Amino acid sequence: MAKEFSRQHEVVYYECDMNGNMTLPTVISLAIQVSETQSNELNRGSEYIHQHGVTWILTNYHLEITRLPKVDEQIIVTTKAEEYNKYFCYRSFWIRTLSGEELVHIQAVFGLMNIETRKLSRVIDEIIAPFESQKITKIKRFGKLEKIVIGESLPYRVRFFDIDSNLHVNNAVYFHWILDVLGRDFLTSYVPKTITIRYDKEVEYGNEITSVVEKINQDQVMCTRHAIMLHEETCCEALIEWKELSK
Amino acid sequence: MAKEFSRQHEVVYYECDMNGNMTLPTVISLAIQVSETQSNELNRGSEYIHQHGVTWILTNYHLEITRLPKVDEQIIVTTKAEEYNKYFCYRSFWIRTLSGEELVHIQAVFGLMNIETRKLSRVIDEIIAPFESQKITKIKRFGKLEKIVIGESLPYRVRFFDIDSNLHVNNAVYFHWILDVLGRDFLTSYVPKTITIRYDKEVEYGNEITSVVEKINQDQVMCTRHAIMLHEETCCEALIEWKELSK
Repeated sequence: MAKEFSRQHEVVYYECDMNGNMTLPTVISLAIQVSETQSNELNRGSEYIHQHGVTWILTNYHLEITRLPKVDEQIIVTTKAEEYNKYFCYRSFWIRTLSGEELVHIQAVFGLMNIETRKLSRVIDEIIAPFESQKITKIKRFGKLEKIVIGESLPYRVRFFDIDSNLHVNNAVYFHWILDVLGRDFLTSYVPKTITIRYDKEVEYGNEITSVVEKINQDQVMCTRHAIMLHEETCCEALIEWKELSK
Repeated sequence: MAKEFSRQHEVVYYECDMNGNMTLPTVISLAIQVSETQSNELNRGSEYIHQHGVTWILTNYHLEITRLPKVDEQIIVTTKAEEYNKYFCYRSFWIRTLSGEELVHIQAVFGLMNIETRKLSRVIDEIIAPFESQKITKIKRFGKLEKIVIGESLPYRVRFFDIDSNLHVNNAVYFHWILDVLGRDFLTSYVPKTITIRYDKEVEYGNEITSVVEKINQDQVMCTRHAIMLHEETCCEALIEWKELSK
């Protein structure tokens, strides 16, 4: 049974959008911070990982959002590196209220990238042993992401602070691009219910990417398909299912 | 003697730039988070403040940076609401190592804004009493900010997540605009030593601001003057003194 790790957190105003809900980039950053703290406590911090010539990369997220944490709320963030196979590690995160109500469940897929070759490395047993994850042979998938037919778009330039100390665009930054393109009227009318996101290709400092979105109404449910494009190349794709925000 | 409040924090990779140093937007966000936690523990959280029809606004920062916190480092963030006069509250923040070495000292000036009129309100005794700040009559100033003569610039659109739950652009966002315009070559060659920043006028969602910068060499010291412009109007000004980054 994989080791669980939790941290309490108080939601402050600048972590929240104009609806008073925690922003998705903050949800993701907070989750990652808790897993980093667990890694450090198990002596598997980035220094240790880098000694093996590798760094963590994130390939997929799937989020199920019952409701987003609210400004001034106390929450508990829990994580567990549940399973792994030859190339991928599957980690879950839960955000809950103090009374145990589940607000957000995140499933994340990580891999190890060789720092020199920038290629995916096999999972190194020594790195993940202390998390007590279960070894599986299956490769888990999180639903197919269909292509956009007709989209609207906005350009975004990759900024200096979008690049983190791992020297690539922090994965929370893609949530900024994917959501911002929808505009205020949409983002104050709807909140995300489920999100599936796949990272395909790294973008670099100075790149001007295009965030493309297509709105589709599936059985009365508002859905949006997203692509982060660098010229003709797709760098990231996502599907979001929305629910109307209760006023 | 004002009440001191501290929190320990472990610096994680996505809080750091490609130099491995904590980003200034994170330094500012972390400081504010610690003062929010103190306010909540003294029952002076935003809910209480809003009941008085006001919200905190930030008018100035002055930062003295000995060195920026590094990825994986353990730091202690301390804050104290030291003094106040009729309209302004003066709060300091210190970031220190576990052994007490001072890394960053921030002096911040806050005021209370009436939520309806958007005008500065007098400091309300009931709000600040539990911080045990000293009442002063003096208005403190942090050096004059001279105008830019010839600058370079880049445009930035105010994004949805730049607006926080107080419904204005979070003050850490200005640090993104002010620094990003300098570009990677500069930001991987220099680190800030002192920063003086003044917030003059709010910008709004959808505004396209221009971040203007002028480099000046004063007695062998690299300095940059900054302005955040909305059309012809100056919304924010700053002066940064830099030191060369040791490779």
